[in-house]
Amino acid sequence: MPAQLLDGQKIAADLLRDLKSEAAHCTTAGMKPHLVSLAVGPTAGAKAYAARQAQVCSELGVGFEERVLSEVTTERELHAALDSLGRDPKVTGVLLAMPLPHHIDPRRAQSAVPVEKDVEGVHPTNVGRLMVGTQSAAPCTALAVMELLKATGESLRGREVVVINHSEIVGKPLALLLLQSVNASPTVHVCHVATRDTFAHVQRADIVVVAVGKPGFLHGEHIRPGAIVIDVGINRVPVTDAKGIPAKDRQGRVKTHLVGDCAYEEVRESASWITPVPGGVGPVTVAMLMRNLVLCTKGMLEGAGTWKGGR
Amino acid sequence: MPAQLLDGQKIAADLLRDLKSEAAHCTTAGMKPHLVSLAVGPTAGAKAYAARQAQVCSELGVGFEERVLSEVTTERELHAALDSLGRDPKVTGVLLAMPLPHHIDPRRAQSAVPVEKDVEGVHPTNVGRLMVGTQSAAPCTALAVMELLKATGESLRGREVVVINHSEIVGKPLALLLLQSVNASPTVHVCHVATRDTFAHVQRADIVVVAVGKPGFLHGEHIRPGAIVIDVGINRVPVTDAKGIPAKDRQGRVKTHLVGDCAYEEVRESASWITPVPGGVGPVTVAMLMRNLVLCTKGMLEGAGTWKGGR
Repeated sequence: MPAQLLDGQKIAADLLRDLKSEAAHCTTAGMKPHLVSLAVGPTAGAKAYAARQAQVCSELGVGFEERVLSEVTTERELHAALDSLGRDPKVTGVLLAMPLPHHIDPRRAQSAVPVEKDVEGVHPTNVGRLMVGTQSAAPCTALAVMELLKATGESLRGREVVVINHSEIVGKPLALLLLQSVNASPTVHVCHVATRDTFAHVQRADIVVVAVGKPGFLHGEHIRPGAIVIDVGINRVPVTDAKGIPAKDRQGRVKTHLVGDCAYEEVRESASWITPVPGGVGPVTVAMLMRNLVLCTKGMLEGAGTWKGGR
Repeated sequence: MPAQLLDGQKIAADLLRDLKSEAAHCTTAGMKPHLVSLAVGPTAGAKAYAARQAQVCSELGVGFEERVLSEVTTERELHAALDSLGRDPKVTGVLLAMPLPHHIDPRRAQSAVPVEKDVEGVHPTNVGRLMVGTQSAAPCTALAVMELLKATGESLRGREVVVINHSEIVGKPLALLLLQSVNASPTVHVCHVATRDTFAHVQRADIVVVAVGKPGFLHGEHIRPGAIVIDVGINRVPVTDAKGIPAKDRQGRVKTHLVGDCAYEEVRESASWITPVPGGVGPVTVAMLMRNLVLCTKGMLEGAGTWKGGR
């Protein structure tokens, strides 16, 4: 029996419906959620991401602005801009678009994001709050994986979870989120580029979270039957025909589509649950960004003493 | 062939010799390292720990003060005391002794420790810096484990490390430290109370870090031959004679001694390296506290623009 589908589109839509109502409560309480995406210089990736944010903010009825600083902005000027967003009472969420130009240190820049408006959970203080389990904004992709696991309805307690990624935005925060419960956490295995035999670990896993950026990295034979597979990979590959020849569009350009890190059709035969790509982790990650924005807005309302609801 | 001994006393002595010279440099540069241990109410554990700190600070030629606030100190008063230590230019390190009385929230108190003087690396910002790999004060026990592993001279790259602990002062920060290298980290497995079969994981491990607080938890048969074993456990148990009868002292009190989480003599036969208890992780943990103190002092000197050396 093929795996059940973890439909990120549907999960995200449900989350966004609730968030829309929470956002409306914030607005009624006197603070409309308002996200500013700050980029330094124009980059194609940041632009596409900002367009997606603009769309979801509009759906949620919350404010959104994209601000693009000149690519010759100095580090000092960027920090000043972030500081100014921190002091602007209208702004409740700040996102610093990556990548930054080479002359700007990304670590120092992330530390300059106003901590209470840090919708991507990248400020060191928010990372630390994640370790100690305080409810605060956390990296969106890691939160999305947790949300997808929750949607399976399966308990995580004592399950063997293999995470194939040890970055600061996926693997490490996800490990901390998975280990947050004192008595009911899963056992967490973090694999990465230096791991000797990743597939041996995958073979024993009840849950596999793969984020390596390699199409077809995981095959059906690697997966323990009945495992839950969360595919974080987003890879653009050529569309090929039955003979493996890349298809072209009318202009003669190679057609492409998005795939994850799993050989989807194969893995689906072994797994109990699987996220598709696209339509799995991606939409839920955007919903988590909105959840962080609402959380930051509520925090500001609490700080101002005008919020009566819970977080 | 029995395991080689990871002699924490010797490793700590070497570290402290270097730190003594670094501390003297700080003093010469105009800022003598000065640690304040702040406790709320008298507790036996905190008192013993403070006595150990006083001793090592004296050996290093750095300042030490133990301050004990009344046990009816309010949270607000504690935060004010921490804030005042943050502003005191003479104080370069602050340690908030645990446990705190029940009426004080330990998380909020740790967040009130002055972040640049946080010698135990418990402030959320320092926890976050740990994730992103910035050199800053980090939890001493986790740092001590890293230092002991370094003392083996073995590369960690791609090794299988099983950590049996997922607390905020051992397992989680240790996982982050182990995963800090982008290309040369070990594979990290975090086991804990909800893990289904911890010993199956231990059996496959190249390196085992055990911190469960149970004497005799790990036996020789559990360990893969040649594994490195770091025993973080500190358990006080009765001394027994050959027949298993508890020995008593002249006053008729049961004699006790300290043991780790390993059945030491057995595990020693299988392991390649092992830490004794006492004399393993403990002394190196104290040395790491001193390293954090020196790091904080250097940070203050850098902040004041009077430090010329590196960190």
